[in-house]
Amino acid sequence: MERALELARTGDFRRRGGNPRVGCVVLDASGVPIADGHHRGAGEPHAEVVALAAAGSGARGGSAVVTLEPCNHTGRTGPCTEALIAAGISRVIFAQPDPNPLAADGAQRLRAAGVTVLSGWRAAEATKINFKWTFAQQHRRPFVRLKLASTLDGRVAARDGSSRWITSAPARADGHRLRAHCDAVLAGTGTILADDPRLTARPGKSVESPQQPGAVMEEATVGGEIEQPIRAVFGTSALPPDAMIFDDAAETVLLRTRSPKQALAELRGLGVSSVLIEGGPGAAAAFLEAGLVDEVINYVAPVILGSGPAAVGDLGIDTIADALRGRITDVRSVGDGTDLCVRITTRLATADTKIDHEIEE
Amino acid sequence: MERALELARTGDFRRRGGNPRVGCVVLDASGVPIADGHHRGAGEPHAEVVALAAAGSGARGGSAVVTLEPCNHTGRTGPCTEALIAAGISRVIFAQPDPNPLAADGAQRLRAAGVTVLSGWRAAEATKINFKWTFAQQHRRPFVRLKLASTLDGRVAARDGSSRWITSAPARADGHRLRAHCDAVLAGTGTILADDPRLTARPGKSVESPQQPGAVMEEATVGGEIEQPIRAVFGTSALPPDAMIFDDAAETVLLRTRSPKQALAELRGLGVSSVLIEGGPGAAAAFLEAGLVDEVINYVAPVILGSGPAAVGDLGIDTIADALRGRITDVRSVGDGTDLCVRITTRLATADTKIDHEIEE
Repeated sequence: MERALELARTGDFRRRGGNPRVGCVVLDASGVPIADGHHRGAGEPHAEVVALAAAGSGARGGSAVVTLEPCNHTGRTGPCTEALIAAGISRVIFAQPDPNPLAADGAQRLRAAGVTVLSGWRAAEATKINFKWTFAQQHRRPFVRLKLASTLDGRVAARDGSSRWITSAPARADGHRLRAHCDAVLAGTGTILADDPRLTARPGKSVESPQQPGAVMEEATVGGEIEQPIRAVFGTSALPPDAMIFDDAAETVLLRTRSPKQALAELRGLGVSSVLIEGGPGAAAAFLEAGLVDEVINYVAPVILGSGPAAVGDLGIDTIADALRGRITDVRSVGDGTDLCVRITTRLATADTKIDHEIEE
Repeated sequence: MERALELARTGDFRRRGGNPRVGCVVLDASGVPIADGHHRGAGEPHAEVVALAAAGSGARGGSAVVTLEPCNHTGRTGPCTEALIAAGISRVIFAQPDPNPLAADGAQRLRAAGVTVLSGWRAAEATKINFKWTFAQQHRRPFVRLKLASTLDGRVAARDGSSRWITSAPARADGHRLRAHCDAVLAGTGTILADDPRLTARPGKSVESPQQPGAVMEEATVGGEIEQPIRAVFGTSALPPDAMIFDDAAETVLLRTRSPKQALAELRGLGVSSVLIEGGPGAAAAFLEAGLVDEVINYVAPVILGSGPAAVGDLGIDTIADALRGRITDVRSVGDGTDLCVRITTRLATADTKIDHEIEE
């Protein structure tokens, strides 16, 4: 299983899609490992299929060790259960049970075919590898992170709307890394109209000089290694066709709705397991009010403005008893102590969130 | 000098007044320590006088080791220089030079009387013991700390004004410790009218049950050990005579001005070396706008409100280039991770601020 977990982790977590990272090791009838494989992303063969192909006839009477319950579902690829049965595997050991109600019952199908099934071994570790995917399967919607970047007094811009730059270059680079680790980046039409952002992930490129703020940042090229997250636009206002989000750097989806629930359903239909809400106060408020934010990541700069737009718009909360209360899961210094990154889990998210962050990001 | 520094630190830092903590060791002519003393607070004899009294005639031809330059000024007590000369001390070694322009020139007076003077030895350590007093002497005004307690989105109350409790009981207890370590606690008339606070320091008494928030907190008795800071009221609005700040738990000063500069001058006249601004947004804004805040201490709760009064009122800042920028000097978890305490130094304060906090508080 150690090797299978290792293989699962080699899967590129930046590869977008509704598929989990899975590793599989095939042992022959005498218990000697003869082949392994991992799943490389949506549309590619599953880990079991890769390993079985490599094992060939040696798999007959042998065992398959997998990090996730083999699927019993014909999606873009055939069910792994049938592949395992056809290969003559006599014993399957898997870690995480399949949380996907459509693909589940793999163990049942294998047992019905006479295969011995052992499950749950190192399940917690396997689950952590696919935290967001598992969340999306269990909750039938993507995991939602809200990114804020504000002054100490909660402002995201000055009175005249100027906001470049509240946080430091390292904090902004950190924000780009957050983009690179989610399937979709969401912004409201108001933000698109006001700021015309590109919303692409450009980690490690934000080393612009403080004398010419923004210069290098805007010129940063899209890293060839990164599969860009979908750019999702929330809201119904019309957008100019020459907006930056319509460039060819990444896919863009206009959600044309003010319903967060509907927006998430549409994104899930596109295979999105995790969404990063980037702006602005209106989109943040809509998702918070709907109870559809699992985690808030707030970059706080040691800056005070005293006026200007707030980080979060009106939530319809009138009294302190109705305040949205979370729990601090992490506090980090960013940019050698220049800014602070505070991570807060809200009602739905679990303590695993932080662990997930450590592994996935 | 080690012993002298130790003695200086035994001085009760919670003892209010315009006086520094000083330690003194007297050695006889052969270099053997024969007496020591420290200053116990305003109106009490200075460290040198205490030590010389204990040494008696043994001081003749001997040395005095002091943490601060001996004063040459007749205040509530006579000048220490004359006491040292009269006792026949032939050598004075001191650490921190006197930053008080009225009391300075002690070294010069001693030298003129034929006493050998050595100065500056372990001056940095000695200065840290009296950071706020030194600051007040150098800047001719008290050291000013602004305490904020806000939600993650910078709100200090919900839309209906309710704010009990945004931060946790441990964070509030921490706030009471801040009160206990300053000479004056300042609030605006608006806050007095809205919240009717007592503004006394009640550290370690805020262990109320989360089921009955506020219950124990309000009943907390004033610790007999604490010399309460002056309660200073900023602003010109009339206050009801039965306001809590008029109880006999501590002295109360009505500053009757909207000028932070004038308010600080009046407090300095009362021997105040450090002021803690506790509320509300108007007072915070007035002092920030006047450039008269040296440090901001912000308790941040993992709470989001989306509306309600902001932590800091309008500063007249229109564009991001004019934002008030500070530097994070400390980030602490409060209440076992429930809340966060972020410490920011603004323009005037130095890197010593944090060190000061560690020693004094």
